[in-house]
Formats: sequence, C-alpha cells, structure tokens
Amino acid sequence: MNEALVRPAIKMLKDYVPGRNPHKPGMIKLASNENPFGPSPKALRAIIKEGKTLHLYPDQKSLLLREALAKLLNVEEENLIVGNGSDEIMQLAAVTFLRPGEEVLVSENTFSVYEFATRLLDGIPVFIELKELGQDLEGFANSISPKTKMIFLCNPHNPTGTYLSENSLDTFFKKVPENVLVVLDEAYAEFAEAKDFPDSLKYVRAGKSVLVLRTFSKYYGLAGLRVGYGIASKELLRYMFRAKLPFNVNRLAQAGALAALGDKAFLLKTYKNNCLGKKQLYRALDKLGLEYKKTESNFIFINIKRSADEFFVEMIRAGIIIRPLTSFGLPEAIRVSIGTKEQNQKFIDLLAKGPPPA
Amino acid sequence: MNEALVRPAIKMLKDYVPGRNPHKPGMIKLASNENPFGPSPKALRAIIKEGKTLHLYPDQKSLLLREALAKLLNVEEENLIVGNGSDEIMQLAAVTFLRPGEEVLVSENTFSVYEFATRLLDGIPVFIELKELGQDLEGFANSISPKTKMIFLCNPHNPTGTYLSENSLDTFFKKVPENVLVVLDEAYAEFAEAKDFPDSLKYVRAGKSVLVLRTFSKYYGLAGLRVGYGIASKELLRYMFRAKLPFNVNRLAQAGALAALGDKAFLLKTYKNNCLGKKQLYRALDKLGLEYKKTESNFIFINIKRSADEFFVEMIRAGIIIRPLTSFGLPEAIRVSIGTKEQNQKFIDLLAKGPPPA
Repeated sequence: MNEALVRPAIKMLKDYVPGRNPHKPGMIKLASNENPFGPSPKALRAIIKEGKTLHLYPDQKSLLLREALAKLLNVEEENLIVGNGSDEIMQLAAVTFLRPGEEVLVSENTFSVYEFATRLLDGIPVFIELKELGQDLEGFANSISPKTKMIFLCNPHNPTGTYLSENSLDTFFKKVPENVLVVLDEAYAEFAEAKDFPDSLKYVRAGKSVLVLRTFSKYYGLAGLRVGYGIASKELLRYMFRAKLPFNVNRLAQAGALAALGDKAFLLKTYKNNCLGKKQLYRALDKLGLEYKKTESNFIFINIKRSADEFFVEMIRAGIIIRPLTSFGLPEAIRVSIGTKEQNQKFIDLLAKGPPPA
Repeated sequence: MNEALVRPAIKMLKDYVPGRNPHKPGMIKLASNENPFGPSPKALRAIIKEGKTLHLYPDQKSLLLREALAKLLNVEEENLIVGNGSDEIMQLAAVTFLRPGEEVLVSENTFSVYEFATRLLDGIPVFIELKELGQDLEGFANSISPKTKMIFLCNPHNPTGTYLSENSLDTFFKKVPENVLVVLDEAYAEFAEAKDFPDSLKYVRAGKSVLVLRTFSKYYGLAGLRVGYGIASKELLRYMFRAKLPFNVNRLAQAGALAALGDKAFLLKTYKNNCLGKKQLYRALDKLGLEYKKTESNFIFINIKRSADEFFVEMIRAGIIIRPLTSFGLPEAIRVSIGTKEQNQKFIDLLAKGPPPA
C-alpha cells in the first residue's frame, strides 16, 4: 500500500510513550500512577461472577453502571457516558465536535492524548505554557479565538500535580464562549485534598458547554480494565452516543466498575494511604533539599535538574520504575507515583544514598 | 451547546440496532449469533488468574496474544493488530485511511458498522445490491471509480449466510487497484464448511491491499469480552497502530482471548454442534416449506414473507428471541442463530405450530 494513501493527520501523530512495565519480580512500579493496593476486591468478585455470561454482547450504553453513577453524583443517567477508558471519551468528543482546522487549546507538558485526539481529527492544537508548573487559565482565556472549538484542562494536572481552584475555574468559565467545549479531565480528582478544589459538576448543572471526565484507573485500581466516564449535558451526550461504537465497554468492565463504586473500605484505604504517603515524601524531599511540587494527586513531580532518562535507568537497576518526563517535554524532571509506605521508603532511601554502581 | 457545533457527519449517523437481550430467565436467545455453549472455559480461568494484576495498565499492543495468533496463522506479529472488538478495527481503518468525499463500497443489507465507519470519517458509502442474497463481486468491481478508497466485504455474509468462493475472490482481487483497501470481515469464517471457502491470508501474503478481520465473539464465545483482530501488511498496520488509542484492549480481554485460542475441546464442540444444528434446521425448514438460505455461518437466514417485526414479538412471547432483519433493510426476513440441539428444536416446534395466542 502506497504511503500517500494514509491520511496526513495520521502521519503527524507521535507514538504514545507509556510507563514501562516491570520485568523482574519484586520490581516496584511507581511510573503509571496505578493503585498500590491492586484492584478493588469487590470488582474482582463481580468480574468472576460476570464471567459466565461472557458469550453475550455487553449492554451498549452501560446502563447499570450509569444508573449507579447517576445516584452517586446526583445527576441523571442521560448526563453520563461510559468509555473504554476516559481516553476513548476524549477521542469521541473530538470525533463528535471537531472539524478540520478548528483550534484546540491544550497546556504544554501535559497528558498526550489531548494533542492526539486533536490531530486525529485534523484540529490544530494551540499550546499554552505552564505557569509555575500549573495550567495558566489566563493564558488559556487570552488564547481563545473565533477558531477555538475545544479546550482540554486536566485537574489535578498530570504530570505536575497542581490544581485549578474553584475560584479560578469560575472566573475562567465566564470568559469561555458558549460555542467552545471545555473538556475537564479529572482522572485524579478523587485524591485532591485542597478545600477549594472545584465541584465541577456545578458547571454541568449550570448548562455550561463542559465535559467532565473521570476514570476507574487510579482511585479504583482498575487501569487494566479500561473504564472511564464523562458527565455533560444530555444534548451534548446525545451526539456522542451516536458517534460511539455500539459495544465499546466490555461486560467485565461494566460489572467490575459497578462493584468498585461500592467498595468503600478499599477506597478509604486508598485515599488515606495517599494522604500519608504524600507527607512522607514531602518530609524526605525537604530533608534532601530536592525541588518538588505540592500535589493534589497520587503522584509527585520532582525537578531532579539532571537527565531524567539517565536517572530512570539508574532507578530501574535498583528495582524501582519511575516516570522520566522527557516525553512530556520536561527532560530534567520525574513523576513518581505515591505507593505504599514501604515502597515510598525504598524510593526515598535510594534517593538519599544515590544510585547503585552500574 | 448549539447543535450547529456538531460535525455534520455525526448528525447523519443512524443508531445501531442490537439484538435484544432476554429479560426473563429461561428465554432462548438466537438473535446475536452468540455461542450457545457460553464462553470458552479456558478463557474464564485465564481471566480469573489475570484479575490480580488489574490495577496495572494493559499491554499497548496485545503482544502475547499477537505472538500466539502469529504462530497459529503462520504470519508475523507485525501482520497483526488487536482491537476492542473487530468493529474498532473497522473504525480504525477508516480513521487511518479515509478522507472526506472518498467512496467506500459496501453491500446493501449488510452489517451496519461498515456504513457507520464510512460516514464517521465523511466518506461516501456506495451501496451494491445483493444478488441471490450474496454479495455481488462483479457489481462491486464495476462500481470501483477513481474516488473509491475502501471496500467492505463480509465473508460469510451477515445476515444471509452466503459466502464468496476462493475463485470468485481471486478474480475480484485482480480487478481491485492497488490504492483501494479491501476490508474482508471474516467474523464467521471459523464456521464455514465449504471446500472452496477462501484462505484469505494468501492475499495478505501476496502483498494485496487487504485487511482481514476476525473476532473472538462468535466461535470462541467471547462477545462480551470485545476482542477482534486484523491481519494485514506491516506497512498498513504501522499507521493503524499509530492512530489507535494506546490501551484499547483491556487486560482480561487479552488474557481471555489468548487462553481461548488453545481451548481445542470447546472449539471442536462448537464447530460440530453448528454443523449438526445446520442440518437439523435445514430438514425442519424443508419439511415446513419455508424459504431459507444455505449457510456457511452460525445463523440461518429465513424469508418468512410477512412482517419480521410482528414475528419477532410473537416469538418473544413464546420464549425465543430471533433477529428481525428490518434494520438490515429486509423487513420480511429473519436471522436465527444456530443454538444447541434443544434450542433449535424449540424454535422448530414453534415454527410448526404457529405463534401462541396473544
């Protein structure tokens, strides 16, 4: 097949750079912000039970899961859509709304799928520089033009752990024209402790042109199951439902996510561990005099001021996988997931004594 | 959000019409060509085992599954791509190759996702009429124009059960220009008994511009798990890999499908049951004087010469769900999945004595 047959947009896409998987047993993986306690036990039990009906097609609209989410979030089922990971919903939003040549505002140094979804649909990504490692909402607002169609925001921000406060988002939404869709990715929102972390559903309830995204990958420990969901107005979701593949979320994913929603003991343990781990890491990093950013998420951004790729290799050798932020355009910084107390301590010890000999 | 913001292509999409799910216990579902023996038991065991790692992201490229498929099919891993159902790969092919205004040839009265994927990317579907309930390859060849970019063929054909022979496909491929991609959907190929059913991988090996699609939904009993795969040249797949979402196939789907590949006893039972069930249904339909089509698949097309939607409701009342082909543009025909011997007999008995009173 002739290369000329490929859509030009596809040729411009970069390959996704994932966190690497541990190959040796005993390796500690702090690279992909996965839950250190494993998957929700209730989800696993539900999955085993659902297995016997695996020859049947899944529900097209993830109805039971959407019913449970609607109850939990105090919205209606029609305000919810479920995806094969929230990244599928990002792509679906672009497929549904984005036309060639329309502009999409995204932060520099952020989660790569925002740019991917934009380019896939021949949209033009417009990059807004970070300000003190946070997304610069004024910069975003000032970059809105008549060609702007979508805005991707990430709250808390991956990979820096910073957050957009309720006040700042309130102000921002006043400046966004009605014909611009704001996609607010809250993949890590369940870990936020800040008192002024926004209740983003109020923008949905107020009829704003907004799509809030959440995921079962982090807090619920189900990254391998691929379930994310979007919350938005019925009008907006009606078209997204029409543009999605009929059976996008498999039976085990629907059943597992539904059960995980009710796994209160697991969720509390996850949240508490993250709060404590954060403090444990802050103390150690302060003591070592390392530059890091306070986080509202389940990971910490550390400015190591040397090659992150080299540091990554050294840490691997010592049995810990972290994420060098080179692919995020930050070649001298790393992102470290908050693990269990023991995992954090092992990382701290390694930081303190330096890398093992090659 | 203003409706004018939605891409025009999305507004033109129709809703997918699925086979309906049984609501009453004991209902026999012969509507969606699902495996009557349930899921592959080996798949279920592998899924339970995989559960403990469900907090980790899945492999991006389904490597272990592709290695096993490569061995089985005698191709290389680079000739294989795995999707969240083969319908995701259909959409991915359109996303990768189809530009606005390019034409896509599809049969009338066929699986709806071909048209869906075409319209989603602003392609123009060109419909070729069926000929004696089979896809008309001459009609397809005669409809190729300089604007033709893709051709969707379904072998065996859903919903009529007819097939394209090796000779007819050989002849057809000689007429297809190199710059046209043929997507050959073989979702039901494992059930084919005809001696001249084509070995389609020879077209891949010969360097044709072809993408062969298979699925774990039917033969392997895993419709609820969403795993399909594509076989094509490395050059073609290289771009499709770049256009796909990173984590499109979840961990349980990868592990379950891999195990199902080796579930020989289950697969043999499935195949034998289908061959016998086919004969059982042929005999009964002949006796009843009903018009049907010989099938190479796990379903039978029956021309009932009256409202299929009414017939559907009558059968539901009697405890059996079949598929009225109204949404396929065939309002007086039905598609009945081949079930177990007992399920087939119940369907036959109902046909013979007529519907129960309302």
